[in-house]
Amino acid sequence: MPDYSLEDIVSLAKRRGFVYSTSEIYGGLTSSYDYGPLGAQLLKNIKDAWWTEFITKREDMVGLDSQIMLHPQTWVASGHVGSFSDPLVEDTKNHKRYRADHIIESWIEQHPGAVDHSFSVEDLSIAEMDLFISDHGVLSPDGNTLSEAKDFNLLFKTGIGAVSGEKDTVYLRGETAQGIFSNFKQITDSTRVTLPFGVGQVGKSFRNEITTGQFVFRTLEFEQAEIEYFFNPEESDWRALFSDWKEAMWQFVTHTLGVREDNIRWRQHTDAERSFYSKDTYDLDYHFPFGWKELWGIAYRTDYDLRQHMQHSGQSLEYRDPHAGEVFVPHVIEPAVGINRLLLMVLCDAYWFDAERHRTVLKLSSNLAPYQAAVFPLMKNKPDLVTKARAVFATLLQSGVRVTWDDRGNIGKRYLYQDEVGTPSCITIDFETLENDTVTIRDRDSTEQERMPISDLQHVFNIKG
Amino acid sequence: MPDYSLEDIVSLAKRRGFVYSTSEIYGGLTSSYDYGPLGAQLLKNIKDAWWTEFITKREDMVGLDSQIMLHPQTWVASGHVGSFSDPLVEDTKNHKRYRADHIIESWIEQHPGAVDHSFSVEDLSIAEMDLFISDHGVLSPDGNTLSEAKDFNLLFKTGIGAVSGEKDTVYLRGETAQGIFSNFKQITDSTRVTLPFGVGQVGKSFRNEITTGQFVFRTLEFEQAEIEYFFNPEESDWRALFSDWKEAMWQFVTHTLGVREDNIRWRQHTDAERSFYSKDTYDLDYHFPFGWKELWGIAYRTDYDLRQHMQHSGQSLEYRDPHAGEVFVPHVIEPAVGINRLLLMVLCDAYWFDAERHRTVLKLSSNLAPYQAAVFPLMKNKPDLVTKARAVFATLLQSGVRVTWDDRGNIGKRYLYQDEVGTPSCITIDFETLENDTVTIRDRDSTEQERMPISDLQHVFNIKG
Repeated sequence: MPDYSLEDIVSLAKRRGFVYSTSEIYGGLTSSYDYGPLGAQLLKNIKDAWWTEFITKREDMVGLDSQIMLHPQTWVASGHVGSFSDPLVEDTKNHKRYRADHIIESWIEQHPGAVDHSFSVEDLSIAEMDLFISDHGVLSPDGNTLSEAKDFNLLFKTGIGAVSGEKDTVYLRGETAQGIFSNFKQITDSTRVTLPFGVGQVGKSFRNEITTGQFVFRTLEFEQAEIEYFFNPEESDWRALFSDWKEAMWQFVTHTLGVREDNIRWRQHTDAERSFYSKDTYDLDYHFPFGWKELWGIAYRTDYDLRQHMQHSGQSLEYRDPHAGEVFVPHVIEPAVGINRLLLMVLCDAYWFDAERHRTVLKLSSNLAPYQAAVFPLMKNKPDLVTKARAVFATLLQSGVRVTWDDRGNIGKRYLYQDEVGTPSCITIDFETLENDTVTIRDRDSTEQERMPISDLQHVFNIKG
Repeated sequence: MPDYSLEDIVSLAKRRGFVYSTSEIYGGLTSSYDYGPLGAQLLKNIKDAWWTEFITKREDMVGLDSQIMLHPQTWVASGHVGSFSDPLVEDTKNHKRYRADHIIESWIEQHPGAVDHSFSVEDLSIAEMDLFISDHGVLSPDGNTLSEAKDFNLLFKTGIGAVSGEKDTVYLRGETAQGIFSNFKQITDSTRVTLPFGVGQVGKSFRNEITTGQFVFRTLEFEQAEIEYFFNPEESDWRALFSDWKEAMWQFVTHTLGVREDNIRWRQHTDAERSFYSKDTYDLDYHFPFGWKELWGIAYRTDYDLRQHMQHSGQSLEYRDPHAGEVFVPHVIEPAVGINRLLLMVLCDAYWFDAERHRTVLKLSSNLAPYQAAVFPLMKNKPDLVTKARAVFATLLQSGVRVTWDDRGNIGKRYLYQDEVGTPSCITIDFETLENDTVTIRDRDSTEQERMPISDLQHVFNIKG
């Protein structure tokens, strides 16, 4: 297990303005979090990196931004109204509710050896969960017997219309993907995409879940980035496309987000776990302080979704090949990730207690760090130093570098603060600066300082000419 | 009035993949729109420009990303539960519902001279609207009498909790601003902000409104960018700050978004129109095809909001001056804009039918255009040209330039297509390219072509070294 705890991350996140409990002044809201100044920037940097790598830099991808509220038939077609649910059990004494699978998982953890190593809770049907609970005498966390498991739908409902009692029910989207399928015809009609091509979007989704207190790992309101990659199964080998996408996901996590390879792994879904229409599904897992958990899923969903929407809308979602003239329903591969999980992963992976120098460091890569640099005047009561430092600061700021100013306390304390929020470079303006226009730039991870001309900062921060 | 119609914009937006009706295959959803590949990129570019100018480039601003679902007390404190409503009237025969103020406004338009020039519908109370309707015999659009006006709350409701009948009511936020006020204490506790400073966020808001079919101008689900700028009224002159913010808003619209100054104007709210706690409010209006309409509001809201949240949460939202030690509730100036309105404005302002060359052009600035450039091989059946063109295209694509490829039809048609989606530069690889590594780059607005070395493209598109 990692040598830090989830509490370390939660505490740093709150203390330094990354993540707050939602509506804390009103006592909070179940499994809900707001992103403070540094967290909002980190979240934006992750979303922007995803958009750049998967939309901007790929000629076979386009973006989309569909609504959170879609026509309710969308969710009938997708199967969410019928079967998007969690199996819940109730403590028969105090009526607290839990997810049956979570109850079973934690019982297994507490009873090592009780079940076979290959046993997977994810594979159990509701009836099998009930059987497991009664066979093993599984009790609630408060030690009481449990009710039979029941399915509860996860979609949030609301109503459109100005008069109460006459509202039309709509759902808050349970995933962003359905907005892609339902716009498939509009996209092929209005752009010049040709197969194979993908459509991606980032945005909020909502699931009325029972969560297990793993911070932003699972929240009722969360941000997804989903891709539907459409292709002609007669022309493209799905295994090759699937493998390319797995590679792209791996590269994004390790290269773009700078996460250590040791901390991620692939897990293939079992036959029982996989949806009936899917030919193959993998999860990319990260080694969180609470165990290996799903970060990013990839599934080959065949033509299931488009066919469902064809059937429910009565509209054709077929594609006509511009060369061969062939008409067919495309197949799809779906790489779907939770942005908030990426953020939690990034915080966990970057967290480092540097015992030697007794400091906490977030080793965020420069493209993700909320601040790329901090600028310090060596002393705040020397007007020459302050004026010079303000000029350097203003130039970086106006160039769009994410830069912060600090003139409080001594330099050592300022370094410690910037280390903890992950700022890669600290630039200090000292007396030598006044003589020869050089500054020191201190590296967060090594703590080494280098002296360089102010004019070199343009190169260091990739400032456009 | 502008020399194009809203229909021109709607048609182009749909035809070229900027904006679609939400869930069109299911017959659509009231006042709801999805953004297609080009619209999603344009929307992102506008949001990113707002974030860069108002968060990244300002040392007195920080970002935030609070949830759509906040604790319901938030909306009691803010007054939304009590009085965030529209006055609705009903056609007594067919029971269709309308906003009373809209019904009166359209009656006034149809009866020029019937009311004084200074008459403002916005100033009318519900009772005064009823009086106006009965005095003037105002009828419904179908010619029937109207019911008395009634207030209908605009907040969307949903329920948190896994079991129906036992859900806790929460509201989808009616504005992003309240997430800023409710996190004020968390922000000042966890960051080093000192007054005056502002907090900004961009995100979805929801209002269950009766709309009037002005495309994305007013939709049930929309995207806001709001700033709360906090200051000490004893130290800062609110008139000076207010004036600075007005200037920043004007600059953003004219300079960053490239909109013509002739098409925007300030409108000061009347005393009756302004909220009781506000000392001054202005709207920045744009000249849409359907008239001058609010784009961006700025209000001096005093300490009203923080005091409301203090009262309802029982928590102190006071600020302690780090130097003087003085403790007080900060005052606030709020510049609040609808991102979808900015997008509609940008499309309207960029729309140009070039009668001389018989073409439709979107004169989008390069920072906003969905594609900054298009790359064409002169002919698609010459492998040398295509290979060379693909190399140029790949270099731009991998550098993060928003670039598109087109090899269909003749060059003239490709130009027309790119003009219509607003691509500023078209780069053509021709036979001379094969000889001397130069390309032609054609300017969208002037249609003039310039020949330049391929290596110069790096400079044209500001590609980092």
